[in-house]
Order: sequence, then structure tokens, then C-alpha cells
Amino acid sequence: MKQHRITFLPSERIFTVDDNETLLDAAMKAGVYINASCGGNSSCGKCRIKVIEGNVVSARDPKISRADYDRGYRLACKSRPEGNVVVEVPLESQINRSILRRRDRKPLILSASDLGQLVKKWKSNPSFFKVFLELPEPTMDDNISDLGRLVRELRKVYKKDNFSTEFKVLRKMSGMLRESLWKAIVTLTPRNGGYEIVNIEPGNKVLQNYSIVIDIGTTTVSGQILDLANCSQDICTLAESSDYNAQIRYGDDVISRIMYSRKKGGLANLQAAIMTTVNGIIKHLVNESGIEKALISHLIFAGNTTMTHLFFGLDPKNIMLAPYTPVSNSYPPVFARDLGLDLEDNVYVQASPCVSSYVGGDIVAGVIGSGMSRSDKITLFMDIGTNGEIVLGNKDWLICASCSAGPAFEGGGIQFGIRAENGAIEQVRINPVSYEPMIITVGKEKPKGICGSGLIDGVAELFLTRILDQNGKFRRDLSTSRVREGESGYEYVLVYKENTQIHRDIVVTEVDLANLIRAKAALYAGCKVLLDNVGLTFDDIERIIIAGGFGHYIDLEKAQTIGLLPELALERFIFVGNGSLLGARLFSFSRGFIEEAEKISKMMTNVELSNSQKFMDKFVAASFLPHTDGKAFPKTLKKRKDI
Amino acid sequence: MKQHRITFLPSERIFTVDDNETLLDAAMKAGVYINASCGGNSSCGKCRIKVIEGNVVSARDPKISRADYDRGYRLACKSRPEGNVVVEVPLESQINRSILRRRDRKPLILSASDLGQLVKKWKSNPSFFKVFLELPEPTMDDNISDLGRLVRELRKVYKKDNFSTEFKVLRKMSGMLRESLWKAIVTLTPRNGGYEIVNIEPGNKVLQNYSIVIDIGTTTVSGQILDLANCSQDICTLAESSDYNAQIRYGDDVISRIMYSRKKGGLANLQAAIMTTVNGIIKHLVNESGIEKALISHLIFAGNTTMTHLFFGLDPKNIMLAPYTPVSNSYPPVFARDLGLDLEDNVYVQASPCVSSYVGGDIVAGVIGSGMSRSDKITLFMDIGTNGEIVLGNKDWLICASCSAGPAFEGGGIQFGIRAENGAIEQVRINPVSYEPMIITVGKEKPKGICGSGLIDGVAELFLTRILDQNGKFRRDLSTSRVREGESGYEYVLVYKENTQIHRDIVVTEVDLANLIRAKAALYAGCKVLLDNVGLTFDDIERIIIAGGFGHYIDLEKAQTIGLLPELALERFIFVGNGSLLGARLFSFSRGFIEEAEKISKMMTNVELSNSQKFMDKFVAASFLPHTDGKAFPKTLKKRKDI
Repeated sequence: MKQHRITFLPSERIFTVDDNETLLDAAMKAGVYINASCGGNSSCGKCRIKVIEGNVVSARDPKISRADYDRGYRLACKSRPEGNVVVEVPLESQINRSILRRRDRKPLILSASDLGQLVKKWKSNPSFFKVFLELPEPTMDDNISDLGRLVRELRKVYKKDNFSTEFKVLRKMSGMLRESLWKAIVTLTPRNGGYEIVNIEPGNKVLQNYSIVIDIGTTTVSGQILDLANCSQDICTLAESSDYNAQIRYGDDVISRIMYSRKKGGLANLQAAIMTTVNGIIKHLVNESGIEKALISHLIFAGNTTMTHLFFGLDPKNIMLAPYTPVSNSYPPVFARDLGLDLEDNVYVQASPCVSSYVGGDIVAGVIGSGMSRSDKITLFMDIGTNGEIVLGNKDWLICASCSAGPAFEGGGIQFGIRAENGAIEQVRINPVSYEPMIITVGKEKPKGICGSGLIDGVAELFLTRILDQNGKFRRDLSTSRVREGESGYEYVLVYKENTQIHRDIVVTEVDLANLIRAKAALYAGCKVLLDNVGLTFDDIERIIIAGGFGHYIDLEKAQTIGLLPELALERFIFVGNGSLLGARLFSFSRGFIEEAEKISKMMTNVELSNSQKFMDKFVAASFLPHTDGKAFPKTLKKRKDI
Repeated sequence: MKQHRITFLPSERIFTVDDNETLLDAAMKAGVYINASCGGNSSCGKCRIKVIEGNVVSARDPKISRADYDRGYRLACKSRPEGNVVVEVPLESQINRSILRRRDRKPLILSASDLGQLVKKWKSNPSFFKVFLELPEPTMDDNISDLGRLVRELRKVYKKDNFSTEFKVLRKMSGMLRESLWKAIVTLTPRNGGYEIVNIEPGNKVLQNYSIVIDIGTTTVSGQILDLANCSQDICTLAESSDYNAQIRYGDDVISRIMYSRKKGGLANLQAAIMTTVNGIIKHLVNESGIEKALISHLIFAGNTTMTHLFFGLDPKNIMLAPYTPVSNSYPPVFARDLGLDLEDNVYVQASPCVSSYVGGDIVAGVIGSGMSRSDKITLFMDIGTNGEIVLGNKDWLICASCSAGPAFEGGGIQFGIRAENGAIEQVRINPVSYEPMIITVGKEKPKGICGSGLIDGVAELFLTRILDQNGKFRRDLSTSRVREGESGYEYVLVYKENTQIHRDIVVTEVDLANLIRAKAALYAGCKVLLDNVGLTFDDIERIIIAGGFGHYIDLEKAQTIGLLPELALERFIFVGNGSLLGARLFSFSRGFIEEAEKISKMMTNVELSNSQKFMDKFVAASFLPHTDGKAFPKTLKKRKDI
């Protein structure tokens, strides 16, 4: 992809963009304010810029007159650079404050190849592995049982005595061995200090071993099919697939699912729903990769504790009721077929172990997947969602907690909150003089609501431009009609109804603000409690790993501005995306990782915050913008002052 | 039961009988010949005796005239002594030869209390055992998972780290623990050098643990329910039940069952049939004992290799086809419910391990159950049936073989052969002068056929009275119409049709004799091969253990007479009856016995006779009465000479 340098006049701000990005994208990233009300949809016609040098691709929009077009005026949201370009931002949009200076160091995003690095030190050594055997045919002088013959050969290979056998193998072994002329591929798994024979297939020497790994999210389920036999130096992903968790129809979050599970037939319905989703993903992965289903040896999944319970059909009731005890945090291997999965008879399911009711297998997988549990560096792992799960520590110690942040980050409890779907406002800039906003939506569609990252962006801007005070209340003395008294108190109008899909003004209310502040305060306070528990401060943290689909879209500086994240140097932050799936991949790739997960899930100290006075104190202190302790957020307060 | 002394005149033979036995029983046991054609049914009216002293209970039969009755004549088959009695045997019945002298030393019959002796050295230590736990209730300061709580407590009790959990336990554990206020009875089984949690029940301190043990015979299935918790010094049997194996409808013997299993749906039908039979037995045991089904922790069964395969639904085809390889000789524990048994969800089935296609789990169980594998004494274990399985050895070494004896001992291939049911001739005496027979039937019903033990009895008598020669052919020169040429060659009429239920003459033919000789020769030759293999002779054998339902009814001397058993002193013989069930009882009582069974099943050297030239040679040599080597049967030849 080609890159082009965009110079914005009069600020002379320069920013480099990919050639599929618009000048509006460039301006947003460069921190150059351009009026834009419709999310980049070109319907408001406000994002006018003037091309001074270079070429842009931009059909003439009816909102630009022929004369203006000839003079170089374009809509930024419809213009793509064709080389380096110099553009002028119209007067009404010009602002030039130091706070908007673009950061020059980006946080690290852990990529698949980085993970490959982690794996490189490990040979592929899956829990379920295959071996090719050629057995001598029985004769009258050597007529031991078929199983005896198989085990005799395995003993030669593995120098171990202890082989147990899955009953299903016994049922098919004799016929298969004779049909395949005593050549067989045997799937083994470590058990009892020896091995269990879990499957037998007609054999040739080409060993194939595939696995399916799944991240079971409350909202989204993602899966991959991996090739384990032919990728010793890296994990080969043959196909990927994801889908909404079909349990959504029974409730949006874990608590409403648990409530539903208590109804008659509820648990069974929830279990069936997740099986339907996972079966769909399996089908898609098998079709996409062209792999024969019979060659899949196991499925590994990671999910939060409630998702894991529902997957297995375990009653999650006590996860919700004090003192919040799950049925179990580790799970025996179970046959996929017995749970209702469309996989072969001998395929086992293994789940990532959990730590507690609210620190689940997704977090354990994320900790493993991010490499945190093998690093000397003191690391803070944060999965930001409805429940902000946080883990602090390094290879020697780990401490964790779950902060009930509430659903604000996922758009819940926010009047115009929606998921990060097309039309969701995801980026917001506000002109500190005119208080007019500039927004970009997902998919550049007309706005229909605001997603979590958009909300953080917007609130950070509202705060920095001093439209909001530190209590999260709108100033009543501003000369803008954007701040007004609405039905539920004061609010700021982000988009007027004529520019929306929903034909209503999209606003941020003080109730929304209270919810967001509660969420960010819980997360921040949780981190503080963990740090306090081990006698550390934020400055001692060498790395902060942000996991979760939501984390991916967070603008770190804005998150620091509202006090969600501490003001550490941006290069200390790492985004891992779906840490849960990364971990599941590692579990499948090498059983060493599963053993590590079992170990760390038991060793992690879980701090229960829900009845902790210390947590409450810190939560109250954090329920300001950015925090009652201004000394913790010097950069933010300076920026706000400078505007 | 009272006992009475019967003195038979003129021989002055004295014999003691129980007061529910008839004078005909007494005469048969005492070796006193009395004419009796109807099996003791009183229909032939031939067994007249005269009471000289003492009283007998005997209603006057119309076949005794009033005058004769008054003179003391009675039918022996209808007379029971009321105290010591002296009776005279009519002239036509009198014989008095030394060979008929009753043995005075009886072989040992191993009783349940003898077994108790074996067990006394062992504490009850079943594979599936229960422990009562009282768990601390979860609190906010101690809110580990429910499983974690359970395992933490188990670790305190067992000082082991390694606890795995059956998935079904997870599913019910949380609700149960809360309902029972955190008191629970946990069923454990050793696994992985630690324990597996296989069940959890609401708890009180009264531990109850019951098991079901089953012997799966080709013809008969026998079961018992055992109390394992309250019998530390002995095995307590609470109820017993037995039934025909419902597979009989698909074939009488293992080979015909295997043939049937190859038909479409055949294997499934056979498996379903045995489940039906075992479920019937379970139901009966539960009803009879009044034990709550949920308190049964496991089921252990022993059966021959084919029965074991069919029980599990394993394809038995290759048991029948050279080189005779079973699918497996040891079997992983399987859930009873998964096999189709009406037991609770968490009940495991364990099978006695087998040695080879024709030395099965019943034999391994019998070897354990008879104590043979713990004794210094060199012992020959024989299970006499369609396949005569034999095991030779002691606690240090064991060698075994199966001799395809053919079904003659069970009445198969014998023209009038039937099972040992009512009306089956089971005892035969033949007057060496008149060649007239005296018979007793099972249930004293009119004869309808001859069972295995009756056949051995009859052939021994035919041989001793020189009606038969050493080749198993009838002498053609005798002055009796009982020996005649029939449709299939020469035959001896045991009962004329008017005295039978079937209105046909019941005969023993030369074809029958050939079949019987083949059967006994195979068994004898098999023993010789085993002895040869270890450089021993029959004289080195310190004990011969006869197992199997059929063995129970064998007259040892008659079996020696035909050359089925070697001529060792009778006190070296021990009858154990159903050795398979005895072994299963021990397996259930203590896991030490199962471990021993696994060990000896692997250590036993199986000698394949079916293609052994040595065996063929010895078989040919044994295909005479009693044997071509007369020196091996001096007593028999002397008896025959003396008659």
C-alpha cells in the first residue's frame, strides 16, 4: 500500500496516510480540526478543504459549487490523495494548539509474527499428537490381542509402560487394523504419566494433525483451524471464522445469561445456543480450509468463567450469588460429541482453566498468549469490557481481580450507546473555540449512535475543551447551543438529527458521563488495589498489555485523559487484540502451555474487590476526570490548561 | 438336618443319608445296585426293597401288592428313612464287587467361608470407595470454586495432590453440596497415582457402599449384591440371582454367537440381549436386598473372552478366525449407563481381564478366586465345559491353555444329550451280570435325556462292566437286548420308551461315545502338554481345582474311569463351583485382587493347542478308555478286571 504525505496549512502539520484513507482520516489522525457532522458520510458538506499542491481523487459533490471546485475546494471526507498533497483548512476550522500535537511514538501491537517468536522457542508438541505404526501381522506363534500388539509397538517407541485406551478405540480398532493391513496412525495424549490412546486411523506415513481453537466471548465467538503436524517453527492458521454468540438472544451480558439459566430449561437452551454457534464456526473452518473433519484431533477453547460453565452445561448460578463460587476452575477433557459438537467420536474438548468467578479462562489464555507469564518485566494485563479483568505480575508472581466496570465501554447504559458497528461514532474532535464537533463513524455511514471508543474520545475532548468539569458535569455558562438542558439533565449534542440515520439528536448526557466515569474509575481503582497489595505503584509497571476486541480501538491518550489508563509512556503499552484466542492457539500448539495455564491459574492470587473497603475508597477517588489526585495525571491537566 | 444309617443286606454295606433322601439315593451313593429305570419317578416300579429293621415313610404304591407291602416291600425311590434302617435288596439286584466300594474320602468343596479365610488377610479396600466430608461453607474471604473446596479437603485426608474429576460430578456437585449443607459422601477410585472423584452424594456419616458382581456364562448368568462398607472381615452377600443368558436364542455356544455377531445388527442384538439379562439380575438383586440403587458404586463382571467382548459390544470375529486374536484382553472402566445397564450415571463397570481368545476373564477370576495364584502348591485348575480351560502353576508361574473339548460335557453332539435340567439322567449304575441299568434323574422326574455328568457316569459303568471296550465300541457278543444295532450304529438302551417322558428309547450310541472320548481326550491331552512344557508330570500336581457349574456335579472316580481326570488321590481335588463369580467377589472386595488379576493375566503363558503337533499326538493317545497308556490308570484297569 502506498503512503502519501499530507501537509495541512496554515498549521503546516504534516501527516502520512495510506492511499485508501481520506483527507478527513488524515486530519483526524493529525489532530487537525475540520468541521464534520455526518461521520464522514459527505451528507453534511461541512468538511471543506482547499487543495494547494498535488492531486486528490474527489468527485465533485453538489455541496461544492462549480466555481469553488475549480478553485480547489473539496470535501475532505470524499478526497483521497494521489501523491503528496498540501491542503489548506478553512478559517472556521483552524485551531492550532500544542495539545493536539500528534504523538510520534505508537504503542506496540503484538502481531501473529510476534507470537511466532514466542512459539519459536517451542517445538510443536500438542496435547493430542499422532504416531504412525506398522504392526507385524498376527500369526499362530504371535497371536496376542490386537490392543496388546498395538501397545507392544508403542512401548518400543516411547519406552513407557503405562498405556491406557479410550473405549471407543477398542470398538473400532480390530476392523480398522485389518483393513489397513496393520498400518495405523494412532493419536495419543499424555495421561497417568504414560499415554492414553484416544484414536486410531487407517495409516499411511503422512501424518496430519489439525485442531480447532475457539475464543468464546459473551458477544462474539471466534475460531481458527490450525495445522499442527506441518508447522514446527510456527503456528499455521488455515482458516478463521467468527460469529455472534447465539446466546445473545437470552441476554446481553453474563449476569442476564445466568439469570436466564435459572429458568426451566434455561441452562440447556444456553448450552445448545453456544453449541449452535460453535458448530457453525467449525463448519465454516472445515469448508474454508478443505481439511477432512476426521483429521481434527482436538478442540481447545477459552472463555470467561460463565461462558465456560455454559459451554459445559455446568450450573453458573453461584457465579452470580455471593460469595461468587464457580463450580470449578479446571475442567476434565470431555468428548466434543457428548457436548453436542459436530466433531468425530474421539475428539476431546479442553478448556482453558479459570481463576475465579470473574477471572476466567479467557484471561488465563491472554496472560499466556501475551507472554506475560514468561517475562521478567512487571506487567499489567487489562481486558477492558463489561468486566474489566486485570492481572498484575510477571513470571514469578501474578495477582488478579475483576472490576465490575459496567457496560459503558460496550455502549450499555449510554443513551445513544451502540456496539462498534457501522454508523457508530468512533472518533470525535471538538473545536475548543467554537465547541463544534468533528466525528468519524465506523464504515463512514451516517451516525446512528456512539460506541465505547467514540465515547472515550468524545468525553476526553469535552473535558480538554473544558465543556466538562472534573465532576463530569457540563459547564452551564458556555456560548454554544450544543450544551443544553435535555430530558435527563444537561447534555452535549454530538450530531443534530438531520445528519443521523435515526432522525434524533445524538447527545452525550450527564447520566452517560456518570456511567462512563463509574466504569473507568472501577478499572483504575482495581489496578491501584492490586498495586497496593504488592507494594508497587503505576511507575513500577514496565508494560501494560491491553487485550480484548474493545481494547483494540482505544485511543490511549484519550483513555489517559479520562483517567481510564494511567499516564505512562505510550511505548509501555502493548495491544494484543484477542488474547484469549492467542492463548488457545498456544495451548493447542504445545501442551507445555496448557500445563503452564493450569499452573498459573492455580497460582494466581485472586483479589475479591466487590466487598473491599480499600477498593471502594480508591473507586470514589477515581470518580472524577481524570482523578481527584491531579498529580497522577499531570499531562492531562497541562493539556487542558493549555487549550 | 437329621442323618440316618442305612444298612443294605445282604452286602451289609452301610451308608449314612440325610432324612430327605430316599433309599434309592442311599443305594446309588453306597454303590448298591437296585433296578431303577424311571429315574426315581416311581413309574417303573422296579426298585423294590424289603425293610427288615426300622421305619421308613413310604405310601403304598399300586405297583406293590397289599401282601408284599405288609411283608415290608417298598419302592426304594418313594421311601424315606425315619431313623436307622436295615433293608434287604432283592436277589435280582444284588451285586457285590469291590469296585463299587464307596470312596471314604471326599474331595474338598471350597465354600464361601473358606473364601472368607482368603479374604480375612485383606481389609475391605474396594476400587470404588467412599469418604465422608464436611466442607467449610464459602465466604467472601474463602470463595474458591466448589471443586477446589472439595479437593482441598480431600488433600487433607489423603495427602495426595493428584485428584481428577469425572465430568458428571461437576454437573451435579454445586447444587448437591448446597442442599446437603456442605456435607457429602464422595466416591473415589485410584487413578494416575492419585484419585478420581467418580461420584458425590448428599452426606451423612453412615457410609454405605454396595457393589454388584456378575459371572457372565455362555449359558447362565449369575450375580450377587455385596455390602462393602460394613463387612471388613468377610464379604457380605445380600442377595443372589441368576438367569439364562438371553443370548442363547442366537446360539448355544460361543462360536455360534460369534457367527451370529457377523450378521447385520447381530453384534448389537447380542449386546442388547446380555444387557437385558444383567438388568433383570440387577433388578432382582436390588429388590431382594432392599438396597437403594443409588448406593451401588460399581459393577464387576467376569466372563470368557467372547462373553466379555459381547458385553462391551466389541467385535468378537477374530476370536473365531485363526490366529485367534481378541480385540483386547484388558478393558478400561466404562460407565454402566453407556453400555445400557440400569444403574446410576456414575457407576463404572470393570471386567476381569482375559488372557487370550479362549482363556478368558472367568478363568482369571477363577484362578484368583481359588487362591491358586497365592499358593506355593503346584495346582492344576480346570474349568470343564465346551472349552476346557486349564491353568497350571502356582504363585510364581502360570501356564494356561484352552482345549476345544466340544460340547459333549454339556450334552451337545450327544443324541439324547440335554442340559442338567429336570428329567436329565445324572447318575447311572449298571448291573455287571444282568447289564440292567439303575438311573436317577434330576428332580426325580421321568427321564427325558442325559446330561454331561450322567453321560460320564454311564460311560464309566459301561466301560467297567465291559459292555464297552477300550476303543469306545460296544461288545457285540453280550447276552442282553440292551446292546443293539440302531440307526447310527451300535447302542445301549439306558431307558425304554415306556419309562420316558419322550416316548422314545433313551440310548447311548457309539457316535455319542466318540464325541465324549474326543472331549475327555482333548482335556487330558491339554493337561499333558502344559505339564510337558514345564517338565512336570501329573504326580507333581499337589492340587486339582475343578471349577464351573458342570464340574460341580462330576463324580471324580467316574471321571477318572473314563480318563477325563488323572488318577490322583481324591483328596487332592477341590471343587470351587463358580470360580468366576468367586473371583469377581474378590475383585469387588479389594482392588488388590484386581491388580493381581491384571498382573497374572499378563504373566500367564498361553499355550496355543489348536495347531500343536505335540497336542495332537497326546490327543490321539488319550482317545481310548481310559487311555492308551494303561500305566497311567492302574486303578481303573484293576476295577474293570475285578468286576
